[in-house]
Amino acid sequence: MGVQLVSREFRLAYRPVGEPKADVFTMVRTEVPEPGDGQIVVRNTWMSVDPWMRESMKGKVHLPPFDLDAPLPGLAVGEVVASRSAAIPVGATVSHFLGWREYAVVAAAEATVVDTDLAPAEAYLGVLGITGLTAYATLTEVAAVREGDVVFVSAAAGAVGSVAGQVARKLGAAKVIGSAGGPEKTRRLVTDFGYDEGIDYKAGPIAEQLAKAAPDGIDYYLDNVGGDHLEAAIGLLRERGRIAMVGAISSYNATEPPPGPRNLFDLAGKNASLHGMLIDAYLHLSPEWVRRGAEWLADGTLRNEQTVFEGLEQAPAAFLSLMRGANIGKMLVRIG
Amino acid sequence: MGVQLVSREFRLAYRPVGEPKADVFTMVRTEVPEPGDGQIVVRNTWMSVDPWMRESMKGKVHLPPFDLDAPLPGLAVGEVVASRSAAIPVGATVSHFLGWREYAVVAAAEATVVDTDLAPAEAYLGVLGITGLTAYATLTEVAAVREGDVVFVSAAAGAVGSVAGQVARKLGAAKVIGSAGGPEKTRRLVTDFGYDEGIDYKAGPIAEQLAKAAPDGIDYYLDNVGGDHLEAAIGLLRERGRIAMVGAISSYNATEPPPGPRNLFDLAGKNASLHGMLIDAYLHLSPEWVRRGAEWLADGTLRNEQTVFEGLEQAPAAFLSLMRGANIGKMLVRIG
Repeated sequence: MGVQLVSREFRLAYRPVGEPKADVFTMVRTEVPEPGDGQIVVRNTWMSVDPWMRESMKGKVHLPPFDLDAPLPGLAVGEVVASRSAAIPVGATVSHFLGWREYAVVAAAEATVVDTDLAPAEAYLGVLGITGLTAYATLTEVAAVREGDVVFVSAAAGAVGSVAGQVARKLGAAKVIGSAGGPEKTRRLVTDFGYDEGIDYKAGPIAEQLAKAAPDGIDYYLDNVGGDHLEAAIGLLRERGRIAMVGAISSYNATEPPPGPRNLFDLAGKNASLHGMLIDAYLHLSPEWVRRGAEWLADGTLRNEQTVFEGLEQAPAAFLSLMRGANIGKMLVRIG
Repeated sequence: MGVQLVSREFRLAYRPVGEPKADVFTMVRTEVPEPGDGQIVVRNTWMSVDPWMRESMKGKVHLPPFDLDAPLPGLAVGEVVASRSAAIPVGATVSHFLGWREYAVVAAAEATVVDTDLAPAEAYLGVLGITGLTAYATLTEVAAVREGDVVFVSAAAGAVGSVAGQVARKLGAAKVIGSAGGPEKTRRLVTDFGYDEGIDYKAGPIAEQLAKAAPDGIDYYLDNVGGDHLEAAIGLLRERGRIAMVGAISSYNATEPPPGPRNLFDLAGKNASLHGMLIDAYLHLSPEWVRRGAEWLADGTLRNEQTVFEGLEQAPAAFLSLMRGANIGKMLVRIG
C-alpha cells in the first residue's frame, strides 16, 4: 500500500468481575497488514459501543466473544482505502464488525456498502443499524404489536428504546409508556421519542409508577432491563399479553445471575407469552428496515438521537458511560 | 320432586397456609332445592380433583375461587335425575363444574351432554376432559410441537403428562422425555405413556439427568412443575426452542412465590419463547379433541390411566394424595 499504515486498537486486558474499570481496555499499536484476495482495508470513521459487549467480556458463547489479547469486535463504519475485491471499490462507505480500531482489514463478504445519500454513515450504527433494527424486528416479528395495544418500553431513552417508542406508535399502539433514569431523559421520552408518558425509575418503585401510567394494564412490554421492570410488567400484563425480552442491562454487571421474576407463573393465568430475541436471527429484515426507517427519517416522522464521544481513545469512556446509562439515544464514538 | 333429596357436599373451612391438612375441608348436608326454569338436577357419579384447586384455596382471581362456607367448584359428571330444560332430558349423562357434592342443580346452559357410547363417563373428567384437552391444546395451539422436536414433559405420569407424551409422539416429535417422582412412575412413562426415556427427579439433580437424556438439547418443554425443572429446561433449550407453561405444582403449597429461574434471560440468546396457558382460552378445541382422542382410545393407540378413590367422603384424601404426587394418570373420585 505504499506507506505502512499503523492502527491503534483496543484489546481486553482481563475479564472483569462486577462493574468494569477503564483499565480493562488496553490500547495497542499494530501495523496494518496488506489485504489478501477478496479483502478490503477500511479506515473506520465511527464505531459503536453496546451493552452486549459487557456480556461478551464474560466470553458468553451466543455473542461475538471478547477474547483476551486480540482486537475487539463491534459494529463500525468507515471508508474503503484499499481493495482487493471486485465487489467493493476504494472510496465506498461500508459497515462491518471490526470496530474498536482505526483501520480494519475486512473480507468484502463481511462488509456491507451503505448508502450515505439516504442517511449519514453513522446512522447505520444506530437508527438504521443493529439497534434500530432490533426495535423494528421485535415489534413486527418477534412479538407483533397490535392495533390498540398499550405498550411499555424500558431503557426507553436508549438506542433501542428511543426508536421503539416511535415505531410502536406507527404500528398502531394506542398508548406508549417508557421508563428511563432521571428527569431529563424521562422528559425527552415525551418531547422527542413519541412516548405518551415517561416514568423515571429512579424516582420510585417501578411497579407503582407503571400501575399509575397504565391503570387498565399493558398488552406489550419490550424489556431492555430485566429485574424489577420485568416483574412489574408481568404483574400488569393483560390477557394474551406479550413480552419481548431484548436486553437485561440491570444484570450484566452482576457477578451471579439474579433470580427471575417471582410472578413468572402469572403468565399462565393470563395466557401471556415471553419471547427472547437476539438480533442475529433477524438480519434478513435489515433491507426492509433501512428502506422504511430512512423514509421516516427523511419525512421527519422518526427522530434519531445520538450521544457522541470524540476520538478512538475515548471508546472505553464511551462504553463505561453507556453502562452507567449516561447516553440519550445511540452511544457512538467518532474516530475521525 | 316428590322425595326431598339430601346432598352431602364439601366446603372450605379456612384458607390453608403451606401444605393443606384434611380439616381444611368440611362436609355439610344440605337439602337439594327444586330446579328452576332451565335448570337440571344431576346425581354426580364421578368428580375430579386437580392441582389448580390448591391455587383456588388462595382465592386467586384467574381460577374459579374456593369461597369459604360455600360448596366447592370442580369438574364432575353425573346422571340427570330431574330437568326443567328442554335441551337436556332426564337420563342424560352430563359434565359440569359443580363437583364436590352428590347432587348438583345446574343451569342446562352450563352442562355438556357427553356421549357414553364413545367413552365411559369418567373419561370426560380426564383424558377427554380438561386435562387431556390441556395436553392437546398446548401441543397444537399454545406452542406447536414440530416434526423432529425433542420434547420434555414434567409430571409426565400425571393427568396432563400421561396424555402429552403420547400426543407429542403422534404430532411428530423425534424423542419424548418425561420426568416423574419415583421408580414405579418413571418405569410406567416408558412402558405405558409413550415416552422414550423417563427421569426420576427424586433420584438426582434434574439438570444433570435431563442433560444425559438429551445430550443435544431439547426443542420443547411442557412445564407442569416450575422450579428446578424449568431452570434445567431453559438451560438445555435449543435455538428457537419453546416452553409451554401449564402448571407449577412445585410452588402451589409455597407461602411466598419462589424466585423465577436464574437463567431466564438465556431465552433471549436462544431466540426462544415461553407461552403461558390457562385452559379457559382453549375450550373451543374440545369437540376436535373429543373426536380425535376418542378415536385414538378406540383404536388402542392412546392409553388412559386413572387413579380412583371410592366415595365422596374420600374426595379430600384424593386431593391431598394428588398434591403429594400419589396418582398415576388422572386422579378421580367415584361418588357411586
